[in-house]
Amino acid sequence: MTAGEAVSALRETLGADVVALPDEFGDRRVVDWSGLPGEVPLAVIRPRNTEEVAQALAICTRYQQPMVTQGGLTGLVGGANARGGEVALSLDRMNRIVEIDEVSGTMTVEAGAVLQNVQEAASAAGFYFPLDLGARGSCTIGGNLATNAGGNRVIKYGMMRDQVLGLEAVLASGAVVGGLSKMIKNNSGYDLRHLLIGSEGTLAVITRVVLRLRPKPTATATAWCGLPDFKAVTTLLTRAQAGLAPGVSAFEVMWAGYHDAVLGNLPNLRAPLGSSHPFYVLLESVGTDPVRHNEAFEEFLGAMLEEGVVTDAAIASSEAHALAFWAIRDAPGEYQRFIPNHAAYDVSFSIAQVGDAAARCEARLRERWPQALILIYGHLGDGNIHIVVDVPGLGKHDHDDIDHVIYDVTRELNGSISAEHGIGVKKRHFLPQSRRETDIDAMRAIKSALDPLGLLNPGKIV
Amino acid sequence: MTAGEAVSALRETLGADVVALPDEFGDRRVVDWSGLPGEVPLAVIRPRNTEEVAQALAICTRYQQPMVTQGGLTGLVGGANARGGEVALSLDRMNRIVEIDEVSGTMTVEAGAVLQNVQEAASAAGFYFPLDLGARGSCTIGGNLATNAGGNRVIKYGMMRDQVLGLEAVLASGAVVGGLSKMIKNNSGYDLRHLLIGSEGTLAVITRVVLRLRPKPTATATAWCGLPDFKAVTTLLTRAQAGLAPGVSAFEVMWAGYHDAVLGNLPNLRAPLGSSHPFYVLLESVGTDPVRHNEAFEEFLGAMLEEGVVTDAAIASSEAHALAFWAIRDAPGEYQRFIPNHAAYDVSFSIAQVGDAAARCEARLRERWPQALILIYGHLGDGNIHIVVDVPGLGKHDHDDIDHVIYDVTRELNGSISAEHGIGVKKRHFLPQSRRETDIDAMRAIKSALDPLGLLNPGKIV
Repeated sequence: MTAGEAVSALRETLGADVVALPDEFGDRRVVDWSGLPGEVPLAVIRPRNTEEVAQALAICTRYQQPMVTQGGLTGLVGGANARGGEVALSLDRMNRIVEIDEVSGTMTVEAGAVLQNVQEAASAAGFYFPLDLGARGSCTIGGNLATNAGGNRVIKYGMMRDQVLGLEAVLASGAVVGGLSKMIKNNSGYDLRHLLIGSEGTLAVITRVVLRLRPKPTATATAWCGLPDFKAVTTLLTRAQAGLAPGVSAFEVMWAGYHDAVLGNLPNLRAPLGSSHPFYVLLESVGTDPVRHNEAFEEFLGAMLEEGVVTDAAIASSEAHALAFWAIRDAPGEYQRFIPNHAAYDVSFSIAQVGDAAARCEARLRERWPQALILIYGHLGDGNIHIVVDVPGLGKHDHDDIDHVIYDVTRELNGSISAEHGIGVKKRHFLPQSRRETDIDAMRAIKSALDPLGLLNPGKIV
Repeated sequence: MTAGEAVSALRETLGADVVALPDEFGDRRVVDWSGLPGEVPLAVIRPRNTEEVAQALAICTRYQQPMVTQGGLTGLVGGANARGGEVALSLDRMNRIVEIDEVSGTMTVEAGAVLQNVQEAASAAGFYFPLDLGARGSCTIGGNLATNAGGNRVIKYGMMRDQVLGLEAVLASGAVVGGLSKMIKNNSGYDLRHLLIGSEGTLAVITRVVLRLRPKPTATATAWCGLPDFKAVTTLLTRAQAGLAPGVSAFEVMWAGYHDAVLGNLPNLRAPLGSSHPFYVLLESVGTDPVRHNEAFEEFLGAMLEEGVVTDAAIASSEAHALAFWAIRDAPGEYQRFIPNHAAYDVSFSIAQVGDAAARCEARLRERWPQALILIYGHLGDGNIHIVVDVPGLGKHDHDDIDHVIYDVTRELNGSISAEHGIGVKKRHFLPQSRRETDIDAMRAIKSALDPLGLLNPGKIV
């Protein structure tokens, strides 16, 4: 059997409209945002429904043809790039919002639906879909599921995993598993849903999903705080979670180095405070009672200032003011402008160890590269920090030595090498830093059980 | 190899103090609360640590000796009962609270820890561990994990699955997998944790776990409401979730038949309202600001009364008053007194379909058994209802016909045959009512991948 035969069989069964060859899909983008190399797939399959996905996979199994599923291609670890020899499966035609059930508070969507469309449809129906990340206009729900996406509101609403009630998927054999269940409680056998979420397309192709919608917050309070040390930062977090009843919806910490570098390099940003501090926190709380909520927020912040947990603070007086705070936190989208060759890391630790982890990384990087620019920031409520390192003279793909410094600290402190971006190809060789050898063996056994020929997204994760 | 050789090898390696024979463990209870039959195990292994669990499992694998893990034996589906020929593994010696990390908001425990001890230790440290169920004084964290336990506070805090950050377990081979990670975000490969949670001891033995602690609520408001119809019940739910900012922590609905039967049969209960209604709801909200929270709760309830969503309501004026409301909801613990031969079901549906599901079940049961006592109540916020049926003349183990009525409705409405109790042996034959054949095949493949000899809790789930 040759790859050519597989592509012919796919095209014959599904039609030329569904199965496009390289000279037909032309300059369609086929690699993700990681900057890692990716090959042009032998064909791009664009099914219109679950049955066509099942047909395509059954044919791939018959011809032992490897396959990679591609969503919005906004991943950062090369997880959706072809290695060579694969056909690509795109769910861009399966992008419908199938149903909104307002009584049950659910939305059923096809996996190719774009995140932003889901957010907007939820909002139009009077609900809130909390998952949010920078790539919202391009990334798809299927990709969010494959990587168990996180983002800024995990502290209150959880990861993508926590937004899913039912999930339908197709195994390599073409068998359809799962379903469009709307149940919050469902203990009937192994939870395939949670196994598939975060498996980066290596176990199945997710086709449709029932999302859980949340009540729309009608009150938001946002503050920008300057703090004297990391202990004050964790104290503020603990106190905010215990004292702000409706719920902290974001707790973004920025080390001074990050704050100073982005404000120094991006002229459209303005410092919210007139003073300098070792740490800055963007604190956001949401509720449904604007008067009581905002009063309680101000009282809380007043107490924190009085106790010295916070040295200085500004409360956003308008939505525009809050957006100006967020622009500082969202500055990583502008890195290309001033540090195009930077290395970026997405790691997590216990909340108590984040300060120590950041200090160890910074000290070791500084020792080796005294001139390095080191930017540290992240979602402290989730234990997740991003570390960005720019070493003058080091090229874009010349980060191996920096990788080792960061992932050594991750291993020493029992952290994770991937908090929210996934493993893909980029971090595959570092997986033993975060997982036991016995875990990786178990993962391989599960992979073999569900995809015995190893056809789905080969070379990723395990 | 014989079972005798396996037991001898276990005893030789682990010692007579760890491996007890039937004449030594005497009248130790070895069956769960389901009332289903269970055999006396060949031996009871009581390891002191993870290493001894690993040794025991490696020996079982070497001798192909089946094994069943037993926690507090409070399950309701026979999931922890021996079928005959197994050794039992009890984690009752591994019941320690290993560490509380107040900054990270985590508690590390051994899997044999009793739920109530975990709740009390969390409270003593200024935190809240939200999982709660009637068996709290006997059930263990390991059992809660094996069954992905639910309970009354799922609407706000989620299932047992949502309380776990890190999990260490031993596979049948004796390999230790997972670990004591404290990370909220950790996307590094397949999530074995979520696969093992809810697998009822068929894939691994969970040994230690890192639990997530929550801020302790300092304000609680509780109301007892009478409502005119089921539509009003779902409206109250939607409005409460959108309007009560700090968070609805319980939304327990009771059909009139339940209310009238328990109040008529249990003289210690008092009706909270002077009037009769088709539906009753116990609504609870928690927060951290007693004044604002309780004011908002009263305002909300006033609006619901004014709009006619709620016909009559009583707000608890004290903790004792709230406990009197809860006593009505917790009356199922007293069923033995007046319906000792009842059949009990734990099913779930989309929230929108709960009313229809209950009506269908009741109509079909009533058609066949006009004299039946039918009690319906449950956690509407989770789509989970309990249906209790007592047919005069039908014995305790004579429920097959009732099973079929309930599970037929479950299948018709795409519901789940087990919302929170699990499958065990009791519901194994009904699993195809809730899961596709392809799902069950995938579950079998995963079972074979992780436990190739089928030694762990044989005959359960799949």
